[in-house]
Amino acid sequence: MSQRTLLLLSQDNAHYQRLLQAARLPHLRILRADNPSEAESLIGEAHILLAEPARAKPLLARANKLSWLQSSYAGVDVLLGNDCRHDYQLTNVRGIFGPLMSEYVFGYLLSLTRQLACYREQQAQQRWQSHPYQGLKGKTLLVLGTGSIGQHIAQTGRHFGMRVLGVSRSGHERVGFDEVYQLAALNRLLSQSDVIVSVLPATRETRHLFTRERFEHCKPNAILFNVGRGTAIHTQDLLDALAAGKLAHAVLDVFEQEPLPADSPLWSTPNLIITPHNSAYSFPEDVAQIFVRNYIHFIDGQPLDGRIDFDRGY
Amino acid sequence: MSQRTLLLLSQDNAHYQRLLQAARLPHLRILRADNPSEAESLIGEAHILLAEPARAKPLLARANKLSWLQSSYAGVDVLLGNDCRHDYQLTNVRGIFGPLMSEYVFGYLLSLTRQLACYREQQAQQRWQSHPYQGLKGKTLLVLGTGSIGQHIAQTGRHFGMRVLGVSRSGHERVGFDEVYQLAALNRLLSQSDVIVSVLPATRETRHLFTRERFEHCKPNAILFNVGRGTAIHTQDLLDALAAGKLAHAVLDVFEQEPLPADSPLWSTPNLIITPHNSAYSFPEDVAQIFVRNYIHFIDGQPLDGRIDFDRGY
Repeated sequence: MSQRTLLLLSQDNAHYQRLLQAARLPHLRILRADNPSEAESLIGEAHILLAEPARAKPLLARANKLSWLQSSYAGVDVLLGNDCRHDYQLTNVRGIFGPLMSEYVFGYLLSLTRQLACYREQQAQQRWQSHPYQGLKGKTLLVLGTGSIGQHIAQTGRHFGMRVLGVSRSGHERVGFDEVYQLAALNRLLSQSDVIVSVLPATRETRHLFTRERFEHCKPNAILFNVGRGTAIHTQDLLDALAAGKLAHAVLDVFEQEPLPADSPLWSTPNLIITPHNSAYSFPEDVAQIFVRNYIHFIDGQPLDGRIDFDRGY
Repeated sequence: MSQRTLLLLSQDNAHYQRLLQAARLPHLRILRADNPSEAESLIGEAHILLAEPARAKPLLARANKLSWLQSSYAGVDVLLGNDCRHDYQLTNVRGIFGPLMSEYVFGYLLSLTRQLACYREQQAQQRWQSHPYQGLKGKTLLVLGTGSIGQHIAQTGRHFGMRVLGVSRSGHERVGFDEVYQLAALNRLLSQSDVIVSVLPATRETRHLFTRERFEHCKPNAILFNVGRGTAIHTQDLLDALAAGKLAHAVLDVFEQEPLPADSPLWSTPNLIITPHNSAYSFPEDVAQIFVRNYIHFIDGQPLDGRIDFDRGY
């Protein structure tokens, strides 16, 4: 069998090179491009890319030998537009982000419900005073997206005694969820939900799913998380809804424009928590494992894990 | 059967009265004492107390008809001293605090590991910048105390991919724990543990379990939680250990002296988080359920749930 060339296009190139060389994959030559000019000069040789989607995108037109791109991220939307080639196999990483996303969602959720800010302030004032609070038990959690990330978040909610509702394209039952519905049920589900978490990818169907009209259905005490893609929420409508008390809090890790511009009104919106798109991280150890398994499939001519349907968008 | 008199001695008396009257328990007269003078005048009539231990303690000597005290709290140590009567059945509430304690421990743990303070500050500065972090996966959690609270915390750790070690008097295997040891193994376990959680009751064996010598065995990155009883930790030794970098953080909900005095050096110790003994709360709905079940046992002459062994101390 002829040799294949893998080109690494990631901020963690050195780490990936070390891990993949140690794996001694057969017939594989490993190259890395740590900057755009190295990438330009090596892209023509690559049969395979292990890449952050945004680094790969401008190179695709000159990737003459490309047959497979393994994204190191879950989100591959920048590669799905009509301006992009779709004549290669695109795979993303799945099944490794659930625990990290749960950590983020429940870390922020509990910091709000358990009033960490209040007790931090009281400590600074040497003040010993308890305030009423409610546990998560019996609250309703709505998770939009029922893949492996959504399932882990759902199971975490269940572990804390929450009732867990889900929304997916199919509406099919999933582990960890009490009930799963299709998108058409969203308004009714919002009116029951104390915590709403979107892990939705950027697709035609999810774009501006949350608009002014939608927030009218939220409970005033609701907390909204977006750890999927920023396009799912109409930003100005969310700001208006928060100002009008249509929901209590929003915690956003993703935005319509990233990085969020320094002059964005979001930074200083009360009851809005902003993090720089880091609710999960593609730890090279986890991604390399997925790559190794997929490479074996690849040379054996077997289907790859995490294959993206360019039409469906995930 | 003759009528029994229950006296309510709790900050939530009105709530308990409503719940227990609605339960229509047979042969039960319900009285409440909302202040010390009411308590003084009614204590002689009570066969049963539903009480916060500290409210009951000064009244016990005059509780001539007392045969059962249902504590609304888990911790009953104030009733265990040699200066207290031990000639009645004492029961505490169990099995209802696990989720709340897990919320507290993982709320604070994730606020530290996921750097919530850092991102809060960056938001105030309109700054979009990600910092490296590690997930809980693969970290080692040590839980001291393997009852229902310890088990829930252990299961939460497992859910996030942690390795979970336990310490108990018996060292017997428990659900949620990878391994359970007796106290003699503590130093060795501390040297492996990234997160240490004490849910231990106040007993002779647990008093000043954590001293200067013990902290020598901790990992410098370790985070120590105390949600059991303050006596388990030698306060000054902990302050010295934090100052010397023997461990990274402590999160304390319980103290040797409560309320923590306003002039305590703990308030302003860096890397020490203080909360006013509210990691769990005895929600009347949960406690009343336990009382109702136990009252049926009581009138049937059956063993009560949550019976305290005065000698063992829990």
